[in-house]
Amino acid sequence: MTTRNQLDRLSLNQKTTNSWTLPESVDGCLRAGLQSIGVWREPLAEFGVEAGARLLADSGLRVSSLCRGGFITGEGEAASQAAIAENTAAIKEAAAVGADCLVLVVGGLPAGSRDLPAARGRVAKRLAQLVPIARDHGVQLALEPMHPIYTADRGVLATLGEALDLAEPFAPEEVGVVVDTFHVWWDPQLEAQIARAAGRIASFQVCDWITPLPADTLLARGMMGDGHIDFARALALVDAAGYTGDIEVEIFNADLWAADPDEVVALMKQRYLDCVIGAANDGAVAASDVSGALVGATS
Amino acid sequence: MTTRNQLDRLSLNQKTTNSWTLPESVDGCLRAGLQSIGVWREPLAEFGVEAGARLLADSGLRVSSLCRGGFITGEGEAASQAAIAENTAAIKEAAAVGADCLVLVVGGLPAGSRDLPAARGRVAKRLAQLVPIARDHGVQLALEPMHPIYTADRGVLATLGEALDLAEPFAPEEVGVVVDTFHVWWDPQLEAQIARAAGRIASFQVCDWITPLPADTLLARGMMGDGHIDFARALALVDAAGYTGDIEVEIFNADLWAADPDEVVALMKQRYLDCVIGAANDGAVAASDVSGALVGATS
Repeated sequence: MTTRNQLDRLSLNQKTTNSWTLPESVDGCLRAGLQSIGVWREPLAEFGVEAGARLLADSGLRVSSLCRGGFITGEGEAASQAAIAENTAAIKEAAAVGADCLVLVVGGLPAGSRDLPAARGRVAKRLAQLVPIARDHGVQLALEPMHPIYTADRGVLATLGEALDLAEPFAPEEVGVVVDTFHVWWDPQLEAQIARAAGRIASFQVCDWITPLPADTLLARGMMGDGHIDFARALALVDAAGYTGDIEVEIFNADLWAADPDEVVALMKQRYLDCVIGAANDGAVAASDVSGALVGATS
Repeated sequence: MTTRNQLDRLSLNQKTTNSWTLPESVDGCLRAGLQSIGVWREPLAEFGVEAGARLLADSGLRVSSLCRGGFITGEGEAASQAAIAENTAAIKEAAAVGADCLVLVVGGLPAGSRDLPAARGRVAKRLAQLVPIARDHGVQLALEPMHPIYTADRGVLATLGEALDLAEPFAPEEVGVVVDTFHVWWDPQLEAQIARAAGRIASFQVCDWITPLPADTLLARGMMGDGHIDFARALALVDAAGYTGDIEVEIFNADLWAADPDEVVALMKQRYLDCVIGAANDGAVAASDVSGALVGATS
């Protein structure tokens, strides 16, 4: 029997139920008995930042993250200024909604460029410019290493180790890291780097690596239990590193987006219990066919 | 003007011209003025190992690699014995054709398993069993780290650093590593790990990372110059590590496979000069539209 307790740390990232507006997401969380939500800037802007901040505060939900800032790899002074301005706006929004952190996806190679070390250098430089702004607003920046499938076009920050190297010059409450199982599960350094991340884990996100990979790599993520990731191991590692925050489920997947969001949330809760929390208890992963059935019924 | 000299190190991996039989590949290399070929076991078996060995010896071509052994992650005694037997056969074939090395793709997670550390442990254990067999046949085993996009279903060995960790207990002439730009280009540790690989680089392979990634990830590789990889940097790094061997072009790509193989070889030569060797000289990458034109004309 599911107790309220077991779902205490579960957070619904808005991307998992992409068709919902911000109020629909808040209502959906409350209906499902969740205590936390990961908010995206686009639906927040659509509803209005001030109104959204009020809605979230009134709901009693925690805001486990605001997604997302970043995209700071552009070349030249104009790109730099635009990136700083955009991220300053994101920092203010994170402060307004009381988000635990602002997730930063750093951006890929600029069009036509093959200079990966230079792009990484710009990330370090602009991060240093953003830290004092975030500090002034009491917002923790959270560097998200992205799976190397996205290095070229989305995130030149490819490993947790690299994220920690970037974060190290700053205080943990200024710059943390995101541990997203989809992005880091393959890393032979995972155990060592999560241990090294102790005190800096700003967000722990879960979703699965499924094969064959869907054709659109941006929508390639799977519901926990549908793929190859050992969530029990990942949770044990962040636990050992002292992380006690929310566990956010963020899934970009066209089939799930086409399904009824309430059913997606129900499935997410079940899989969270079976594959993330349950598996942490007894080592067994329940690989039921519920997602397949859900997708089959709705797509 | 192209001198024969500039193409001295260029090797055609058979996968780049996948429709060619072994004799067609040998003839194609000779017609194109190449001195080296990367051989695959399947077309070699089709022609006959003994006859193939004679054909290759008579051609005067070097065999820069035999692809491939590996797939040593299976669970249980039967899987272990089958893997050792299969790799012993591959080692004998590598010796028969005088290949510089036998490339090992270690294999992914067994069906239904999510235990990545255990799979990696089996790779280490079976590698230790294969080394004496390879030594007896005078064959160097070459561990190929695979892009993390393949960790689940093809190669749990995900980084050059991990490959070097596995190789270190053995002599360099027993266990080397493959540096394939497609698999390693994204790695923030690339410079440090290639330097560490000095004396152990058994094979240097080039092909490009293209976006958007083709739907079939196994055929996602691009002709040099069509994607995001800085080949000049990669070549400079392996040069600095003392690598003087062949530079093998291995491209899995459905469009190129549908094109006339002689035209693919001609394009490969041009791009090798422009993007690999040429770029190493002057820092400029020629991003012509030749592949697009070729593919457009034939598909």
